[in-house]
Amino acid sequence: MTVPPRKPATAAKRRARRGEVYLVGAGPGEADLLTVRALKLMQRADVALYDNLVSPEILALLPAATERVYVGKRRAVHAMRQESINALLVEHALAGKRVLRLKGGDPFIFGRGGEEIASLSAHGIPFEVVPGITAALGAAAYAGIPLTHRDYAQSCVFVTGNLKDGSMDLDWPALARPRQTIVVYMGLPGLPLICRKLVENGLAAGTLAAVVQQGTMASQRVVTGTLTSLPGLVAKAKLHAPTLIIIGDVVRLREKLDWFAQNKE
Amino acid sequence: MTVPPRKPATAAKRRARRGEVYLVGAGPGEADLLTVRALKLMQRADVALYDNLVSPEILALLPAATERVYVGKRRAVHAMRQESINALLVEHALAGKRVLRLKGGDPFIFGRGGEEIASLSAHGIPFEVVPGITAALGAAAYAGIPLTHRDYAQSCVFVTGNLKDGSMDLDWPALARPRQTIVVYMGLPGLPLICRKLVENGLAAGTLAAVVQQGTMASQRVVTGTLTSLPGLVAKAKLHAPTLIIIGDVVRLREKLDWFAQNKE
Repeated sequence: MTVPPRKPATAAKRRARRGEVYLVGAGPGEADLLTVRALKLMQRADVALYDNLVSPEILALLPAATERVYVGKRRAVHAMRQESINALLVEHALAGKRVLRLKGGDPFIFGRGGEEIASLSAHGIPFEVVPGITAALGAAAYAGIPLTHRDYAQSCVFVTGNLKDGSMDLDWPALARPRQTIVVYMGLPGLPLICRKLVENGLAAGTLAAVVQQGTMASQRVVTGTLTSLPGLVAKAKLHAPTLIIIGDVVRLREKLDWFAQNKE
Repeated sequence: MTVPPRKPATAAKRRARRGEVYLVGAGPGEADLLTVRALKLMQRADVALYDNLVSPEILALLPAATERVYVGKRRAVHAMRQESINALLVEHALAGKRVLRLKGGDPFIFGRGGEEIASLSAHGIPFEVVPGITAALGAAAYAGIPLTHRDYAQSCVFVTGNLKDGSMDLDWPALARPRQTIVVYMGLPGLPLICRKLVENGLAAGTLAAVVQQGTMASQRVVTGTLTSLPGLVAKAKLHAPTLIIIGDVVRLREKLDWFAQNKE
């Protein structure tokens, strides 16, 4: 009996053996808003590291054999420091695993995806980045609010609204401009400050704005108002994270374009 | 023989009979970056109206029986005016068809999606909006350029760079701010003007910028430079549309994060 000669490892096999990382955007929550690429990579992952913004519906799509590791961060309750996440990705990849790093939304929009793959790059670990539907796009589509529109907004700006010691490090004069849509991620606790600062920097107090809670999910809730009225309306409605704030004249279009709530009725 | 009584039409059946429209983002080009939802709706469409930014790979996923209607617009060569597209959507839906309106990228980011569904809303036609991976997210992921990063950019702004009579209607002082990433859609012909205006309005001439041609596709090309050198480098490289321009300090991260080109080698 002759033993066939061992084939030289292909580039793909060699890479698989030393492990690799897929940095994947999981989108805004609704499982059907995953990309086909994300779904394919989920199905072949040995281990999945995920955030708290990745919905249970999406986690349920991972194969039963895939090891699941929660590395989420809630405001003020850090399940794991960023450095530890970076180190864990490296460790699993060096063990030869196919590592899925699943992040809510898009990995390059306020996701610290850049930091995680910089650490992989420094260790010579192969990786791939898969864009996801960032929360702004998901919430806008499902709330019926076009982020740009010839008549109302020629630009759209994304910022985070994290409060630090009661203030916010944002470039208010650049934000408070006409014909611009502002999208604020993680801004709920700072909403009153955001509305006040935008008016102080020149936006009309009557400018429309919306807070979208759990955008794209069946549980989605939307509260709209003006920069003056919105903070009170949102407090009354008892909205909670995750939310997205959309500010600008495009919010008025929702009145006619709110297909999602109408379909639910 | 008894004939079973005719069942009353369900809400879903009634809606199908009077037709409906799916306004769907087809993403940046690579077919695997379609969402699962987009793919599902493509498979049940009677007729598909598509733009020239929808790639052949994606059109190939439509069922053979689906009628295809090209309504794309190239710069200065309008295959169909916006009003005609709006009217065509209404006409097909009123004929009882399931109409797929497939647009490159995301329908609510410079896609005139809002105008198309406003016209549907006015006619009482049911519609659904499916967000897509907008070109900025696709090109950023595949070029290895995080659009936000704690160390370099706290905000990201999207604009279009359409030249009109040699000038551009943009809010230059709001764009030329530190710690902000600027993404310009459709900006290639105006690139020299954009670079000059940003420097005139306060950005350092050495600020890094990149032009990504056919982002996410196997044919993707990326040229990087400074606001001073980029126009010349891009002219020399003979880049052509569709392109996306990314401006800001985050571009320096590409040097280490350019996984896509490295995988192709």
